Amino acid sequence: MAPDLELFDAVLELADDHLVLGHRLSEWCGHAPMLEEDLALPNMALDLIGTARTLYDHAGRLEGQGRDEDTLAYLRGDRAYRNLLLVERENGDFAHTMLRQLYFSAFMHPYWEAALGSSDAVISGVAGKAVKEMAYHIRHAAEWVIRLGDGTEESARRMGAAVDALHLYTPELFEEGAAAGCDALPARAAMRGAFDSTIAQVFAEAGLCVPEVAYPPSGGRRGLHGEELGPMLAEMQSLHRAHPGALW
Amino acid sequence: MAPDLELFDAVLELADDHLVLGHRLSEWCGHAPMLEEDLALPNMALDLIGTARTLYDHAGRLEGQGRDEDTLAYLRGDRAYRNLLLVERENGDFAHTMLRQLYFSAFMHPYWEAALGSSDAVISGVAGKAVKEMAYHIRHAAEWVIRLGDGTEESARRMGAAVDALHLYTPELFEEGAAAGCDALPARAAMRGAFDSTIAQVFAEAGLCVPEVAYPPSGGRRGLHGEELGPMLAEMQSLHRAHPGALW
Repeated sequence: MAPDLELFDAVLELADDHLVLGHRLSEWCGHAPMLEEDLALPNMALDLIGTARTLYDHAGRLEGQGRDEDTLAYLRGDRAYRNLLLVERENGDFAHTMLRQLYFSAFMHPYWEAALGSSDAVISGVAGKAVKEMAYHIRHAAEWVIRLGDGTEESARRMGAAVDALHLYTPELFEEGAAAGCDALPARAAMRGAFDSTIAQVFAEAGLCVPEVAYPPSGGRRGLHGEELGPMLAEMQSLHRAHPGALW
Repeated sequence: MAPDLELFDAVLELADDHLVLGHRLSEWCGHAPMLEEDLALPNMALDLIGTARTLYDHAGRLEGQGRDEDTLAYLRGDRAYRNLLLVERENGDFAHTMLRQLYFSAFMHPYWEAALGSSDAVISGVAGKAVKEMAYHIRHAAEWVIRLGDGTEESARRMGAAVDALHLYTPELFEEGAAAGCDALPARAAMRGAFDSTIAQVFAEAGLCVPEVAYPPSGGRRGLHGEELGPMLAEMQSLHRAHPGALW
């Protein structure tokens, strides 16, 4: 396979989005408020990390430099990570975590749907699995956003605070990044209609307002991350870096 | 349903075994040395926590006092927990974690197989799912025990240290506990043959010796736990206790 560095960059962006968000969700492991959530959150994390694995493996082959999934995941620093700012946001409370999940899945669901017809067999294969997973993530996250937004005074206050803290990161979802020239991947801007409609519907039921965003932050695709990403990667990578590729 | 306190106690013991070991495995979330293990470990944790959920729910109904799965999991202190000492052992290194998993699944696989014919429909239902999961846990853990035991000098040293640290906790697996008089559950002592044969086979491939255990520790079924369990439960229960049964 001839190296395809443009598609490599674009696939790496997607892989980083999934690994970083998956890792964030996994930080809830064993800390959820109910046993049921102690199953749902890591399950969603595993969906995302599973997708990341396949994408890293694919990216490594596209690059053709012999980097495998572990090398790409564990041996790059935060400046080399290409994930969206949204997915690296700290978990905060349960409201923040579920809203972040809703935003991501409301974007990725139509994205993977569009990618089902990709000319790249790995991408269309991933899409087939991910489109079902994202439908579940939307359902699960939406249920919580509605339950909390339309719940007690305190839960509604927290959900409102989550919207204030996170909504401004949603415009970056639609920026093209490295995929601009790749016809193997869907145009991100084309997801706007589906995303807005999902969010509008959920927010209406939850009694939440969609805020205006005057100055949306951006830069994740260029490696300009918030200060939260570095410590997260350091923790995630520490064991692998201490024992690189080894069985001791 | 009339309360059945003998079966309640016995089901609670099983549930505690599964939740405590599941939580221990979930502590690896996001800290595994390879992305592949970052999927395998939480997947095994989810198997165990899923089984625990069903068993707690069943135990609550058998008791008939209105305690649900979250109450049983999150609102009992370590003295009220009835789990085996083996499952509460700290993760230690990867060798310890995988050996602990091998011991537990080498016991539970024949146990659930025998429970397939239980007169209790919930138990036989759980068994149907768990018997497949335990077969996978044995395969996965055995693969690592062999790979490390028969690996580098350092990995073999670590695997040997894990055997020294954990093998003495295996006799407690065969003590009857509260299930002694329950014909809805298999006799634990009857699993000895299958367990010994699995361990002998794996240890032979791994180049490990089965040690003699002169004074096996015991007491988990009576709430006499090691000092490691308290902090683990405190961490696991903190969020639920701060927001008991609530959506804030």
